[in-house]
Amino acid sequence: MSRVHNFSAGPCTLPLEILEETQKEFLDFAGNGMSIIEDSHRGSSYMKIQQDALASFRRLADVPDDFAILFLQGGATLQFAQTAMNLLSSDEKAGYVNTGVWGQKALEDASRVANIYEAWSGKDKGFTTTPDDNEIELQQDTKWLHITSNETIGGIRFGNMPEVDVPLVADMSSDFLSRKIDWEKFDLVYGGAQKNLGPAGLAIVIARRETLNKHGRDLPTYLDYQFHDKSDSLGNTPPMFSIYVMGKVLNWMESNGGVDEFERRADIRSSLLYDVIDNSEGWYSSPVEAKSRSLMNVIFHLPDETLEKQFIEEAANIDLINLKGHRNVGGVRASLYNAMPIESVETLTDFMKNFSQNNR
Amino acid sequence: MSRVHNFSAGPCTLPLEILEETQKEFLDFAGNGMSIIEDSHRGSSYMKIQQDALASFRRLADVPDDFAILFLQGGATLQFAQTAMNLLSSDEKAGYVNTGVWGQKALEDASRVANIYEAWSGKDKGFTTTPDDNEIELQQDTKWLHITSNETIGGIRFGNMPEVDVPLVADMSSDFLSRKIDWEKFDLVYGGAQKNLGPAGLAIVIARRETLNKHGRDLPTYLDYQFHDKSDSLGNTPPMFSIYVMGKVLNWMESNGGVDEFERRADIRSSLLYDVIDNSEGWYSSPVEAKSRSLMNVIFHLPDETLEKQFIEEAANIDLINLKGHRNVGGVRASLYNAMPIESVETLTDFMKNFSQNNR
Repeated sequence: MSRVHNFSAGPCTLPLEILEETQKEFLDFAGNGMSIIEDSHRGSSYMKIQQDALASFRRLADVPDDFAILFLQGGATLQFAQTAMNLLSSDEKAGYVNTGVWGQKALEDASRVANIYEAWSGKDKGFTTTPDDNEIELQQDTKWLHITSNETIGGIRFGNMPEVDVPLVADMSSDFLSRKIDWEKFDLVYGGAQKNLGPAGLAIVIARRETLNKHGRDLPTYLDYQFHDKSDSLGNTPPMFSIYVMGKVLNWMESNGGVDEFERRADIRSSLLYDVIDNSEGWYSSPVEAKSRSLMNVIFHLPDETLEKQFIEEAANIDLINLKGHRNVGGVRASLYNAMPIESVETLTDFMKNFSQNNR
Repeated sequence: MSRVHNFSAGPCTLPLEILEETQKEFLDFAGNGMSIIEDSHRGSSYMKIQQDALASFRRLADVPDDFAILFLQGGATLQFAQTAMNLLSSDEKAGYVNTGVWGQKALEDASRVANIYEAWSGKDKGFTTTPDDNEIELQQDTKWLHITSNETIGGIRFGNMPEVDVPLVADMSSDFLSRKIDWEKFDLVYGGAQKNLGPAGLAIVIARRETLNKHGRDLPTYLDYQFHDKSDSLGNTPPMFSIYVMGKVLNWMESNGGVDEFERRADIRSSLLYDVIDNSEGWYSSPVEAKSRSLMNVIFHLPDETLEKQFIEEAANIDLINLKGHRNVGGVRASLYNAMPIESVETLTDFMKNFSQNNR
């Protein structure tokens, strides 16, 4: 088997050793005589998997005891509304920072269920930057401020989380566990697992428990965070296989140095690419303001679209795949999540140097 | 590897050949050089998997073209509320048949988001039967009637779907694709996949399209069926692995005779068990009224709890596992979903006969 270098924006590359282990035990997990996907979620084997994954996540992200960790379904998309339902009563309001496609979606969906306003918009600058703290306009009586810590499509991120007078609520789908989180600042963090942490079909919510019983809404069972917290996310059948594989990824991260190390690797990987871009005398160009460059999704353009198409095709020929930029922004996008080997990025930077020499 | 006979109420036994195929191609799907769980949901390989699964489901369940088939997350639990949000405007109402734990949960959650009333309750009879048509009390201007076609915990089912003057909406989580569906009668059918169809983490909704744009509500994206219908359930990242495995199960069902054949097998499997119960001179007893006996979840009692405990333990010793009844009803529960081999049921009936002889 020849393994590709998969730069997909998500789902994404996972560690080969974890795929191999999953394959090996797929027919007969722990000698139980059945596959993990056939086992009862109330059985002792699976319950241990889920408890271990919760504990591992808590250690890795250094989540304080007074925060709940929930394993949910419906992706970040369901969370856009669910966060607001659970963290705002009908007479409270929250501000949203609109940094691009995902920030905008979060704002729109939350507006359908709660009193939400836009506290900053990057629209005038084409969503190529994040706000400085003093640009964020908080209205009086704002309960919290929502941010998208990394915009997967725009390729921007908050280098530092905003310092504001209210707690933050953050969609961290595309930089989950690739950076440390200062929990003092947050009431809630959420994200899909399918980029840095595991397979699709799983969303993770980490919420300050004291905020969860104040919405005063009569929420349907699945939409109520407290239901999931009280049942350790086993109140209904969880996305077992995704949690099982994520558990392995979390163990792998712990035994490879934890979030500190993955923060370091993210810096190395993205720097390799930005350095080639910055040293190309403008032949490769990043649309993103320097301070807001994403370490997860590196977006760049070539001199014209024909060259971009040729670049993506020739890259695919040597197994550098899923490099096509999102249709909203075009160009090239290389997504570099936790399990992306640095060697794969070096293969890409070598190709970039050769391609620019050959086509300049 | 010694494979157990897994009578779990869900998740549940899947065909061994499908587990083996999944294992075989796990590291390198279709020669793509990566696992299916690493692939982009927007890539051609995965999109074909999802389209094929949709088409296969439509053929198997004989779903008319004017019904949408949606692959969602959050289980039937999220659907308890989501169905009502999407099928009722704020001034419309629906009736719910309360046949047990799941019927009650559906009713309670729908009541949180819409105008719902109880059209029948089996509470007085201990949830051991389904209503006759003339017992269902429909109020004037009822938009539709919700039923739970099979109660997994109570072990009862509608042998025939109710004949009433309004369309039906049904939770078929535990008998999905084990029986034919007369679509003329239904506006919507939903259920989790993790019993008859595949791994956990996937819910399927089949809805009459003309009913989907009349709720007049400004629903959040994920909660709006039309969002998923318009995007072929690719509007956000779907639970890819669950859909991929379910696709294999659907193919397997098609090549094994389709729903007709699985209806026949369900009848054979459950009859084997009910015959032993009925021929035991009351030593084994079913709490369920004969007309409402489930073909999926066969519940029975032994003369006392001590014998029940001994039965479950001795059964487990010969790899007949997950037979413990739900805490609500106690006793023994054998769940017999589509992929349960008839030989496994025969192993269980042999054990039952021996056990009653030895302990009578």
